[in-house]
Amino acid sequence: MKNFVFEVPTKIVFGQSTIGKIGGEIKSSGCRKILFVYGMDSIKDNGVYNKVVASLQEACVDFTDFGSVRSNPLLSRVYQGIEAARNEGVDGILAVGGGSVIDSAKAIAAGVKSDCDVWDFFTYKATVERALPLFCVLTVSASASEMNGAAVITNEDGARKFSVRSPLLVPRVSILDPSTLFTLAPSYTAYSAVDVITHMLEAYFNNSESNSIIQDGFVHTLMKTVISSTNTLLDNPYDYNARANFMWSATLGFNGLTSAGLGPFGFPAHMIEHSLSALYDIAHGAGLAIVLPAWMEYYLVEKENRYQLLGKEVFGVASARNCVDAMKGWFNEIGAPTTLREANIPFEDIPKIAANAYELAKVWGLNKNYTADNIAAILALAK
Amino acid sequence: MKNFVFEVPTKIVFGQSTIGKIGGEIKSSGCRKILFVYGMDSIKDNGVYNKVVASLQEACVDFTDFGSVRSNPLLSRVYQGIEAARNEGVDGILAVGGGSVIDSAKAIAAGVKSDCDVWDFFTYKATVERALPLFCVLTVSASASEMNGAAVITNEDGARKFSVRSPLLVPRVSILDPSTLFTLAPSYTAYSAVDVITHMLEAYFNNSESNSIIQDGFVHTLMKTVISSTNTLLDNPYDYNARANFMWSATLGFNGLTSAGLGPFGFPAHMIEHSLSALYDIAHGAGLAIVLPAWMEYYLVEKENRYQLLGKEVFGVASARNCVDAMKGWFNEIGAPTTLREANIPFEDIPKIAANAYELAKVWGLNKNYTADNIAAILALAK
Repeated sequence: MKNFVFEVPTKIVFGQSTIGKIGGEIKSSGCRKILFVYGMDSIKDNGVYNKVVASLQEACVDFTDFGSVRSNPLLSRVYQGIEAARNEGVDGILAVGGGSVIDSAKAIAAGVKSDCDVWDFFTYKATVERALPLFCVLTVSASASEMNGAAVITNEDGARKFSVRSPLLVPRVSILDPSTLFTLAPSYTAYSAVDVITHMLEAYFNNSESNSIIQDGFVHTLMKTVISSTNTLLDNPYDYNARANFMWSATLGFNGLTSAGLGPFGFPAHMIEHSLSALYDIAHGAGLAIVLPAWMEYYLVEKENRYQLLGKEVFGVASARNCVDAMKGWFNEIGAPTTLREANIPFEDIPKIAANAYELAKVWGLNKNYTADNIAAILALAK
Repeated sequence: MKNFVFEVPTKIVFGQSTIGKIGGEIKSSGCRKILFVYGMDSIKDNGVYNKVVASLQEACVDFTDFGSVRSNPLLSRVYQGIEAARNEGVDGILAVGGGSVIDSAKAIAAGVKSDCDVWDFFTYKATVERALPLFCVLTVSASASEMNGAAVITNEDGARKFSVRSPLLVPRVSILDPSTLFTLAPSYTAYSAVDVITHMLEAYFNNSESNSIIQDGFVHTLMKTVISSTNTLLDNPYDYNARANFMWSATLGFNGLTSAGLGPFGFPAHMIEHSLSALYDIAHGAGLAIVLPAWMEYYLVEKENRYQLLGKEVFGVASARNCVDAMKGWFNEIGAPTTLREANIPFEDIPKIAANAYELAKVWGLNKNYTADNIAAILALAK
């Protein structure tokens, strides 16, 4: 076990009919006026918006409406959010949505309190030293942004999809009502599953710890839960227990629990995927379904032991080869693309994608192992 | 999945050579003078005391020494601690030890800030509304008190070993250095294992949730880790990875993670054991090794499905009967007593023990299912 610090202070309020608690939670945290960040109209369609507004009003928490955050969220909208938060003098940020909304809210929370350009946090030129307190009502479950300090934003200038991570960006309170996921499209349910699984596997495949019995067991449990609940949900999107098990697995899968004690590790599949979604605006989970099996294929010999263990414990197969096939097969089964072609990404673009990913490799310090050449070689396996 | 709130804000600093961080952590939490609570001389013998003192001095954190907390910690010593904390005007409490020390520190932390008798918190006559901030350096790993809000104290008046639980008693920072466990006696290593396992199994056996795939998987992982690391440690007490895996399992096994989403559940094995350690001053884990197999035996039919699952996943056995036998057999194997006789507790005392346990059943609201009669019947299975 490697040394680690584990600190995840977010208060999780989980379950049916919990959205109405958000106003009281914000008020008891001492905030009086918040920026209410959300995405498109889905939260108005499914009633979540009205529940949140009613709760804020009941708790006498004033708010400024800030919608129109899109998936693969943009830096330009973050700048607008910072300006709105400053103009309105808010003392907290509420994100109602999934990872894109929460990540935008985090960037706004840090940007409001900073003198530097908020993008400097994403290029690691500056460190977050202050941020407004952050609250979430989760409506798309995948990123675990509701219980970690990470945020991913796309800078339209250069199609750079970069990330920031800070303890100051860990939400104070997150409300997780699994029934908000009922109306999530099947494709997004599938993409979310891919994202959750990939979060866990980046640490599972890439850490340097030889004795990881606790962390491995947790990953196996959560992966099996994600797979079985996704299979259930594609047949019956209104299965509460499946939504609940999925939702809690997604949070636990990337809040630091499954990687505590493993030492440092990189996120190569995410790194490569960020270029796909930055350049082609595809869903992050769809991009991961393309990248992860190709990445696994590329490292088949090097990671043989890990694939064997995963295959045995999660897919009930014997060899590393079978594990890669089982993973890719399941992604196909749930309707996620596993080739560039399926996502309409031209094969000739591989050099451009690899060059874009290599920029992030440099920022993340992965450029020792990932050059534009081997990134291209990995992508070539996703033809 | 039942609705739940999960909030475990403790900052865990885990690993080798981390004790020296305690002073800085206390200082950055804003405390300037603390009550330094510990037990007997073991922390002086193994060097932990000096490391803590050096760290406090380096951080310019003043402290008042308060040792002599015994296992099965007593209310009388808590009263003395409250008086010392008041007289010295401390603004925080540091516990350096295991569950007994941390629990005493929690009771002191709550008592200092309260007008009522601190014992009222344990009889549920009063609720903790304020407490001094609490910090821990863990030297005996079992209770998970370093990352939860519970404390157990014995009131010598009536041999009542009762508990309190409050979010205000969750430690701010806990330092977990597995190497502090190297010198723990084999018997206490074994008793600690029994305690950790029983914490998890109380929820595993007694919740009302039918769909517990995540929680079950976590319990199986942690139980297998505890069993394998204990087996290793009884041969080689200086195996760092085994100590580390044990230590982290103990914390995760009772910080709320394995029971979140299961709904309410009781702690009947703990309830009955509290009477054994209150009346006969045996080690808590030793008492649990006597009570748990007897309790499992008593509910063999009712809990058949749960025992079958546990037996299959943890012990590799097929039937509920085999699971109970495997559990008891392993307790014997590691040197924990599984009968009253082995602990020199007279069989004729069963009515007295049951009457004592029934008092706690009433406080904990378990008296619907646990009368003095069936508690006695359970104990009779531990002859």
